[in-house]
Amino acid sequence: MGEMVAGIMTGPEIERLIQLLARLPGLGPRSARRAALHLLKRREALLDPLARALTDVAAVVKACHVCGNLDSVDPCSICADPRRDTGLVCVVAEVGDLWALERSGAFKGRYHVLGGTLSALDGVGPDRLNLNGLIQRAESGAIREAILALDATVDGQTTAHYIADRLSGTPAKVSRLAHGVPVGGELDYLDDGTIAAALNARRPA
Amino acid sequence: MGEMVAGIMTGPEIERLIQLLARLPGLGPRSARRAALHLLKRREALLDPLARALTDVAAVVKACHVCGNLDSVDPCSICADPRRDTGLVCVVAEVGDLWALERSGAFKGRYHVLGGTLSALDGVGPDRLNLNGLIQRAESGAIREAILALDATVDGQTTAHYIADRLSGTPAKVSRLAHGVPVGGELDYLDDGTIAAALNARRPA
Repeated sequence: MGEMVAGIMTGPEIERLIQLLARLPGLGPRSARRAALHLLKRREALLDPLARALTDVAAVVKACHVCGNLDSVDPCSICADPRRDTGLVCVVAEVGDLWALERSGAFKGRYHVLGGTLSALDGVGPDRLNLNGLIQRAESGAIREAILALDATVDGQTTAHYIADRLSGTPAKVSRLAHGVPVGGELDYLDDGTIAAALNARRPA
Repeated sequence: MGEMVAGIMTGPEIERLIQLLARLPGLGPRSARRAALHLLKRREALLDPLARALTDVAAVVKACHVCGNLDSVDPCSICADPRRDTGLVCVVAEVGDLWALERSGAFKGRYHVLGGTLSALDGVGPDRLNLNGLIQRAESGAIREAILALDATVDGQTTAHYIADRLSGTPAKVSRLAHGVPVGGELDYLDDGTIAAALNARRPA
């Protein structure tokens, strides 16, 4: 029998699907309903493949034991790639940040994924982050330079300070991403902090 | 091995999942990546249940042979509900429109889902819509009144005209949703057509 949830008379299976879709970032209740109908109208082309893709991902994707990246192989494709600089390690908060750096094509070293940032507000302490692996990699001498690529937010910068501190006793040199005007950015729309940072870090033209 | 698609070095399973998620309405490539990571961080709480929900929906949800609604039972819960007026049938383009009417709680009759609207531009003719079932329901005398609840767009109104024409030889009385000022709507933001329709259909206060 169908049942009433959120005012819709439909099967419990559809309701359950809508509720789960609504928990994805970027989808609210309304767009989750649209997505569910979109899937139901495209069973062979989309619904079945998506169900399979989710099952496949759950079965094979795991965290790399070296760097914390998500991949179907362990060590991950990046840690296993001999063409990438082993000694240059970019420290990021989340796998999404690693993906953003990879899309830029500007980095040819390895990574270390923390799995979050320190946050007093959310009660995230150093023990909740993938930090010990980073310290061990640095102490073993495997890291020539650790580039802290963390968000320019309070939590991101707190985390950067903490990690710089922890790495200070190791052979690893520690650096950070530069602040400045985003490429394509208009000065008129930039916040004062960014303009000040770009002025301070000015370079010969 | 991981592979390069869209600039991301990751497993092919994750890439496939992102590509499929990006085909949902409301999700682009960027939000599909965020959704995939969100799922990977919540395997037990979200990824596994979503995979199961999709499989369940694909297994049990079907179109009602009477009205075209989607449900896990056939006839659907609405067609099978003895408390609803059998002779009052609301004709809608899509199941999403049926859901919208159900959420309003204002309609206690049955439905007929066309599965789309006539569209010269998209080459959708009467044969592509679930029309024969509606004509048969009307000819059998089962429909006292057919309320055409179609979008107030060119295609929606063309479809309404066509259906009114086809039903004119049957015992069914045909009506339409009223045009007017949306509840909570501000006159200043309404288009001229709506204001004119609301004026023409004015009622004693």
